[in-house]
Amino acid sequence: MLKKGELVSFRPDIKVVDCTIRDGGLVNNFEFTDEFVRELYKTNIKAGVDYMEFGYRADKDLFDESKFGKWKFCTDDDIRSIVGDNEAGLKISVMADVGRTNFKRDICPKNESPVDMIRVATYIHTIPSALEIVEYCNKLGYETTVNIMAVSKSNDNDLSDALEIIGQSCVDSIYIVDSYGSLYPEQMRRLAAKYLECGEKYNKIIGIHAHNNQQLAFANTIEALTMGVSYLDSTVSSLGRGAGNCPTELLLGFLKNPKYHITPVLKFIEHEIIKLKEEGVVWGYDIPYLLTGRLNQHPRDAIRFMADKRTDYAAFYQYLYDKDSF
Amino acid sequence: MLKKGELVSFRPDIKVVDCTIRDGGLVNNFEFTDEFVRELYKTNIKAGVDYMEFGYRADKDLFDESKFGKWKFCTDDDIRSIVGDNEAGLKISVMADVGRTNFKRDICPKNESPVDMIRVATYIHTIPSALEIVEYCNKLGYETTVNIMAVSKSNDNDLSDALEIIGQSCVDSIYIVDSYGSLYPEQMRRLAAKYLECGEKYNKIIGIHAHNNQQLAFANTIEALTMGVSYLDSTVSSLGRGAGNCPTELLLGFLKNPKYHITPVLKFIEHEIIKLKEEGVVWGYDIPYLLTGRLNQHPRDAIRFMADKRTDYAAFYQYLYDKDSF
Repeated sequence: MLKKGELVSFRPDIKVVDCTIRDGGLVNNFEFTDEFVRELYKTNIKAGVDYMEFGYRADKDLFDESKFGKWKFCTDDDIRSIVGDNEAGLKISVMADVGRTNFKRDICPKNESPVDMIRVATYIHTIPSALEIVEYCNKLGYETTVNIMAVSKSNDNDLSDALEIIGQSCVDSIYIVDSYGSLYPEQMRRLAAKYLECGEKYNKIIGIHAHNNQQLAFANTIEALTMGVSYLDSTVSSLGRGAGNCPTELLLGFLKNPKYHITPVLKFIEHEIIKLKEEGVVWGYDIPYLLTGRLNQHPRDAIRFMADKRTDYAAFYQYLYDKDSF
Repeated sequence: MLKKGELVSFRPDIKVVDCTIRDGGLVNNFEFTDEFVRELYKTNIKAGVDYMEFGYRADKDLFDESKFGKWKFCTDDDIRSIVGDNEAGLKISVMADVGRTNFKRDICPKNESPVDMIRVATYIHTIPSALEIVEYCNKLGYETTVNIMAVSKSNDNDLSDALEIIGQSCVDSIYIVDSYGSLYPEQMRRLAAKYLECGEKYNKIIGIHAHNNQQLAFANTIEALTMGVSYLDSTVSSLGRGAGNCPTELLLGFLKNPKYHITPVLKFIEHEIIKLKEEGVVWGYDIPYLLTGRLNQHPRDAIRFMADKRTDYAAFYQYLYDKDSF
């Protein structure tokens, strides 16, 4: 097996990307208070986190602004209201979904923006549209990534073709995204090897974004990193859609680079995450997510099941199984 | 890397060992109702689980019977009251802790007992005492295992010596036990390779018992199994000390042998586990367990922290760190 680094050393190419506001926004409709976001920003700086993703840059013509918190749209001004001139070393990213962002209108030149990196989320069949955004943002001076979502649903040939096309683009980084939390470590290592081969050939950074449906988000993240993957997405206390993501506190506990500190994250959990839970925001591993993950399905049915406060897991499993199989 | 089997096939040597009552008893002082134990027994039969561990066979001279539920002692009569003549294929095990069991008095010949397997839990420095119990039980006709606890604390030379001695005994199976939930998959694979080498040499089955302090119990279990480990411990909904264990529902979702069925376990969770949680029994992954796991410490401080309903995680981490380091 490929292996980069050992358990007692660290690789300087590794970067931690905090997605708490962006992926967590899918849980609470992006209704974070400014205080929460500001505290998280300060936490990330103290913890040595490398990037903080503030949200989506969604098109206000497509989504009704009154129905979402501002971090679904996160304008440069919204971000500036938190970070000022962002004089810390922490870099800032936003996510642009293919087909949901008016990038030519809403993304200005890098030297006028607090944003450092634009991450483009795409399904495998919309990669040309993703690359259009990447080329545009690259010319404006941003770092860029292509995040191929739901890779557990792609067939291997399509993925090879996709990686070739993306490899030939100007993008800086390509992400493995286990949107459904359905991949086992063995599969993750195989995917990482495939992406890393492309990264080697075209000089691209490889990243990983995991979901915790089967309690494997942390395991898959560190397995991918052990293979050579460098950009590691995480969220504080797993705060992200459905079962959530690789928890930052577990990831920082694993990483050996002395720049990373777990204590600020523990304090943020004490002061902010507990409050959020008490307010009734619900996320994280639970049986319904295990079931959609295990069946390699989108978590939407599980999210509804949880929202309805149902607990008839066996009937739900039968429903999911039949829906997909017969 | 060693590898036995693929993700689409199954290995008939794999056995699932349900430890819900035994490890879960450490959470609720073994105060399970007979109904709970009986429902679990029926569930295990329907789910295709191979072994069910009913508890410890603790010495009633050492522990005050009035202070624990009966499954800490689980006599043959206690077990019979649940399983009758146990006509199903499910095998039954009990655990004997070195130094806490009066095996010569409390273990009768196999043909007079409903128990099939005696598992002997030992630290690495009490292995001769463990083997005394093993030899005794083996002569009485039982299957036996040696479970070396807290292996993350052992040094490699001691462990090599221990495996040699155990290998030369009559024991059937040797267990990797990550008592503190501190091992990463990479370390688990290295340990599995070491145990499997001994297993190959002396014709012993290798087993794994994981804890979920770092959300790695399931990952470590399937990684060890992929290497060739055969006996897989799990508990329903992770019900076990501290952060709990590899969840049966995740493990059965992974295993490909058609004898295994996840639905009975889902029903048990609906009907019994939810009730247990509503009654106030608390277990499973949480920040304090992550911290003891990360520091390779016994979970006792985390258990107390949780019982005290504290949430000052950062201070707790500092305490654990200082206690162990300076």
